[in-house]
Amino acid sequence: MRKFSERMGRVSSSVIRDTMKYMSEPGILSLSCGSPASNGLPAAEIRDILDKLLSENPIELLQYGITIGYDPLRKAYIEHLLKPKGIKAELNNTIIFTGSQQGIYLVMDVFVDPGDVVLVENPTFLAALNILRKMGANVVGVEMDDNGIVIEDLEEKVKKYNPKLLYTIPTFQNPTGRTIPDDRRREIARLASQYDFVVLEDDPYGEVRVSGQPVNSIKKYDTTGNVILLNSFSKLIAPGLRVAVATAEPDIIDQLESVKQAADTHTPILTQALCAEYLNRGLMPDHLKETIEIYRPRLNAMLNGLTNYFPKDCQYTVPEGGFFMWVKLPRVKNTVAILENAIRKYKVLYVPGAPFFVNPDDGLDCLRLNFSYCDPETIDEAMQRLGALLEEESNK
Amino acid sequence: MRKFSERMGRVSSSVIRDTMKYMSEPGILSLSCGSPASNGLPAAEIRDILDKLLSENPIELLQYGITIGYDPLRKAYIEHLLKPKGIKAELNNTIIFTGSQQGIYLVMDVFVDPGDVVLVENPTFLAALNILRKMGANVVGVEMDDNGIVIEDLEEKVKKYNPKLLYTIPTFQNPTGRTIPDDRRREIARLASQYDFVVLEDDPYGEVRVSGQPVNSIKKYDTTGNVILLNSFSKLIAPGLRVAVATAEPDIIDQLESVKQAADTHTPILTQALCAEYLNRGLMPDHLKETIEIYRPRLNAMLNGLTNYFPKDCQYTVPEGGFFMWVKLPRVKNTVAILENAIRKYKVLYVPGAPFFVNPDDGLDCLRLNFSYCDPETIDEAMQRLGALLEEESNK
Repeated sequence: MRKFSERMGRVSSSVIRDTMKYMSEPGILSLSCGSPASNGLPAAEIRDILDKLLSENPIELLQYGITIGYDPLRKAYIEHLLKPKGIKAELNNTIIFTGSQQGIYLVMDVFVDPGDVVLVENPTFLAALNILRKMGANVVGVEMDDNGIVIEDLEEKVKKYNPKLLYTIPTFQNPTGRTIPDDRRREIARLASQYDFVVLEDDPYGEVRVSGQPVNSIKKYDTTGNVILLNSFSKLIAPGLRVAVATAEPDIIDQLESVKQAADTHTPILTQALCAEYLNRGLMPDHLKETIEIYRPRLNAMLNGLTNYFPKDCQYTVPEGGFFMWVKLPRVKNTVAILENAIRKYKVLYVPGAPFFVNPDDGLDCLRLNFSYCDPETIDEAMQRLGALLEEESNK
Repeated sequence: MRKFSERMGRVSSSVIRDTMKYMSEPGILSLSCGSPASNGLPAAEIRDILDKLLSENPIELLQYGITIGYDPLRKAYIEHLLKPKGIKAELNNTIIFTGSQQGIYLVMDVFVDPGDVVLVENPTFLAALNILRKMGANVVGVEMDDNGIVIEDLEEKVKKYNPKLLYTIPTFQNPTGRTIPDDRRREIARLASQYDFVVLEDDPYGEVRVSGQPVNSIKKYDTTGNVILLNSFSKLIAPGLRVAVATAEPDIIDQLESVKQAADTHTPILTQALCAEYLNRGLMPDHLKETIEIYRPRLNAMLNGLTNYFPKDCQYTVPEGGFFMWVKLPRVKNTVAILENAIRKYKVLYVPGAPFFVNPDDGLDCLRLNFSYCDPETIDEAMQRLGALLEEESNK
């Protein structure tokens, strides 16, 4: 019998990963993934950029790089993505990660000891929950309403638990699609400062806004260096590249550099240089406009599907952007239990709500739907199938 | 005062990383890095391959991939790198990592609890020591002679400590350049089986053989699934790509997949697809021949430098390949202490021996030299400078 480490007993396989194996089955329509639109990926520009970079400067791209990340990318990120948002940063305030997932992992690694309280939105990104469980953190959920984190509940729990860290996805949250408004963001930064806990502001979707007005980053309200802002190129350029970047105080960046060195030495230079050149060519603004025009009809198709095909008593979020929508079905008892039926009989995939909760007995009447990946016609068909299943289950 | 996690107190910055900042100073000659020859990097082929892949199949390369790794790379690895060595593996015996460093980290993550005994060659790769210290392992060094691990000492320590794992770099070891011969490899596999511990066989340099006969992988002698073989494309194609691959029993691969999912979701697809195509085009055999012809005169230049410029009582390994040579200087008291002088006065960089030892008070009269990165003329000049310093120190 193999003797794995004790922490392996706390690691669970992701329900999303488990459903991915069905995605390639013929006839299955998937509303379960978190992937961007394939037709929005800037493949031609990427090809052109890599060809240019490899003809001009191949050695730098192919040799070992430094752990903290490729300087030109960190500069381009500050110039093109932080400055326009009014966030000030120097080079030593930034570090590159091999995707946001690594960013979340290493931030937790730097701060969280077994037993430490970490506050999370409830529900939240399940891969973050998995990391926290693996590390033996004491995960405590903070209440949300349609405007995200409820400040009164956050303050109460901060006082009660003296948390090490708050993990939040304030814009187009995964899984709910909710966005925290500016006044609450200011309050979150203020509480972090007053009670001295760290805020990990995970913002992979913020630029993908289909409607409404942009909100400020929590980091913008951070006057004491308590907020770590995590951005990703997965939804801006392409997820397969695995490039993300964090902005924080230099003492935090130093610690992150230390654990990143142990974790993977450095992120591939080729993909970092590609992202830098993409930003420096000024391609991002137009690319985002095009991407948003791809997502708009998809989001609308899903909202129409909810109206046309879902049980009339269902409740759902109406996100202004991002990738996800969250649905509550008062008469459906267990969206985990009926997933098998959804796949086998209705040939449609979704992600059950329960795994996103701190307590996986919560949210059994909820599910997460993705509107970024499939075209509007596929979304309509998938929503019709899923609606039929949910009607059936609602009347049992 | 920032409250970092308790484990951060056990994380130390790498001495190699610390010396890297001097590498770019004008006039400094470096024998300290672990980089391959820049003129051996197959830049033109990489450019051509990426252009072809991105014209043919951009979506697959740019979308999310699966955690265990890109199927075509795992297939190509089995076909082109395992089969010729007589190592049998199916697809579910392999997993891709974002470089060997991640492979070492995640294998330790899967097996090692705080307090567990892990055996290592003494001296060994210092980044592996850092990982083990961070995890709170009880690291025990195994004695080496010119043929690597001394089997009698290994067996004695296995009996005494009941270790979870043995970490070994059996071919052209880092830092010593030593290679374990076949008979000892067979014994290591036998002991692992008999006493039921895991062997992590880290083999990044094995293909870079300048002279002598190839030896079998320890994995080839593994009849009970106790050995994990870790290979890297860093020294075969390019380190900046950050692609490595492990071969092990499916139950171990499953656990590695779980921790990798939490660590970085997956390795970038672009770099994986590039390695796959490189192998499938059959470019590796000729590329290795060319690489070896680059390294041969560099290795010889270093050996000549040792004869011509170093104190006559110095002892050194004569590696048949790889990247490193190990030098012991009986009359030099502390190679850590004189590094500053080497940089400032002699403008030459090396890595002191002590950080490679389990007990960093050992090896103060040793140093590691790299012969893969600099051209023969630079090596000669650097050895002349270093020899002058060491003569001076030997006569103090």
